[in-house]
Amino acid sequence: MKPSAETRIRVRYAETDQMGVVYYANYLVWMEVGRVELCRACGFNYRDMEQDDGVLLAVAEANCRYSSPARFDDEVIVKTWIEEAGGRMVKFAYEMRLAADDRKLATGFTRHIFLTRELRPTRLPPKYFSMFGIDARRTAAPISTGTAHSACPTP
Amino acid sequence: MKPSAETRIRVRYAETDQMGVVYYANYLVWMEVGRVELCRACGFNYRDMEQDDGVLLAVAEANCRYSSPARFDDEVIVKTWIEEAGGRMVKFAYEMRLAADDRKLATGFTRHIFLTRELRPTRLPPKYFSMFGIDARRTAAPISTGTAHSACPTP
Amino acid sequence: MKPSAETRIRVRYAETDQMGVVYYANYLVWMEVGRVELCRACGFNYRDMEQDDGVLLAVAEANCRYSSPARFDDEVIVKTWIEEAGGRMVKFAYEMRLAADDRKLATGFTRHIFLTRELRPTRLPPKYFSMFGIDARRTAAPISTGTAHSACPTP
Amino acid sequence: MKPSAETRIRVRYAETDQMGVVYYANYLVWMEVGRVELCRACGFNYRDMEQDDGVLLAVAEANCRYSSPARFDDEVIVKTWIEEAGGRMVKFAYEMRLAADDRKLATGFTRHIFLTRELRPTRLPPKYFSMFGIDARRTAAPISTGTAHSACPTP
Repeated sequence: MKPSAETRIRVRYAETDQMGVVYYANYLVWMEVGRVELCRACGFNYRDMEQDDGVLLAVAEANCRYSSPARFDDEVIVKTWIEEAGGRMVKFAYEMRLAADDRKLATGFTRHIFLTRELRPTRLPPKYFSMFGIDARRTAAPISTGTAHSACPTP
Repeated sequence: MKPSAETRIRVRYAETDQMGVVYYANYLVWMEVGRVELCRACGFNYRDMEQDDGVLLAVAEANCRYSSPARFDDEVIVKTWIEEAGGRMVKFAYEMRLAADDRKLATGFTRHIFLTRELRPTRLPPKYFSMFGIDARRTAAPISTGTAHSACPTP
Repeated sequence: MKPSAETRIRVRYAETDQMGVVYYANYLVWMEVGRVELCRACGFNYRDMEQDDGVLLAVAEANCRYSSPARFDDEVIVKTWIEEAGGRMVKFAYEMRLAADDRKLATGFTRHIFLTRELRPTRLPPKYFSMFGIDARRTAAPISTGTAHSACPTP
Repeated sequence: MKPSAETRIRVRYAETDQMGVVYYANYLVWMEVGRVELCRACGFNYRDMEQDDGVLLAVAEANCRYSSPARFDDEVIVKTWIEEAGGRMVKFAYEMRLAADDRKLATGFTRHIFLTRELRPTRLPPKYFSMFGIDARRTAAPISTGTAHSACPTP
């Protein structure tokens, strides 16, 4: 099962721009809110993973496609799920909809690599594998292709 | 000739996060700074285009690949160029480098459509065609495929 | 009775800086969230006041005293109340506390004037007086000093 | 002599809100840009002070009075100076004006205390005293009143 979570955000005045709609970079902030809530829904705290295990989720790529503008005071539902995950990377996907009428606002994804506090690449500690939906056997298997995709949880 | 421009940005404390590096959404803000400066370098003012002609550049898609982190007080060079442009859309591309050692920080692109003040799709007024590097004949030609790509300026 | 409201905010990663705590300007964004929620609690929608009545609440002054830092993922309670209100201005006050242990994070205030869409000073429409806790008789009274303070609701 | 510096900022689209002017919290970001540039003008690098000496400038209070709105693409001049400084605190003051016509946009101040990396209060290392315009003799003198003001550089 692909872990997923929904979180609700109320659009802040600060997030709008002079076009009268939400400034495009703020959708990436909402994605962050979405994936932190997904972590919580999966049974772990992103803050603790950073503090206790020294594992940081650095963004390697971000993408967002904007369908319809969000406006001040709108309630937005951010649906977040893990699209791929392995010992070295994780890819989150997002869909943002207006709570009022279910209109699609945007879709996107972020690809992350795991880093140490010194910002060097590392592997996700095995204790988090199940939470990220990673199949530990496939990740460790000698016949693994070694790419992140091979370790991706099947939906 | 593909219009391009370079602009320099000093990283603000506000733009960092607790990882000690620039928060990923802020690169999209720098892209905005880059394309506004590109407009200026091309001989027109983005603000005037909005105010006088009522043409808005709405973002349809944004993408950023992060190579190396930027830090507080770093000087960053944002290189911006138009990768595609037509009467209905424009695609900007970006490359961000550290001024100190030319290290690549990130690359990305944004795709935009032209909107009226009421946020309805419109066409770019012809007077801006040359500034965006659009070949007016091809855009108007009956054999035009009508896609944005067909009107894209040749590098 | 002094209208007041409490709203809860979860600290975003985007709101932290490299000191590992929330960047100081973000408390002003939280104040905005607080006063929008206070408006809602008072029975009106700030967005509607802007859209339907063309009355904007422009900030004339903002102040914040920082007592203790907030951190990523902390839950913060923003208490907002109207400290003064009249036909020409309103002053909101704020207290931000950590939900976990009630520790005080910051206190502050914002003073606002009412503007038209063209950003010219105007008076608050009387229909909003009671919601802002304004005593209409005192505001209209010929012996009124005419200052905002004279029209301020008594606690 | 009171150390002061001027720095120029071009208003970003990201900094505007749906009122069509700069969102009020962003002035605090500009203040940060101003004081970092003031440090540079005074001959030291704020980043190095944090990294090499482990001294952080935490904000204890911020205040801003807004006179006239700034708009997208405006060039703003931020004048920053040290209003008070002692071994335990420093107070910066700011004036923001429009480059085009010298119109005053806002004035404000920020009060800071010095913290260690562990966010505990500390004293400014004496090597920075002259840069902050602190008179070392008065700071150390037994007849010092002990208040920050007594150590304030005379204009």
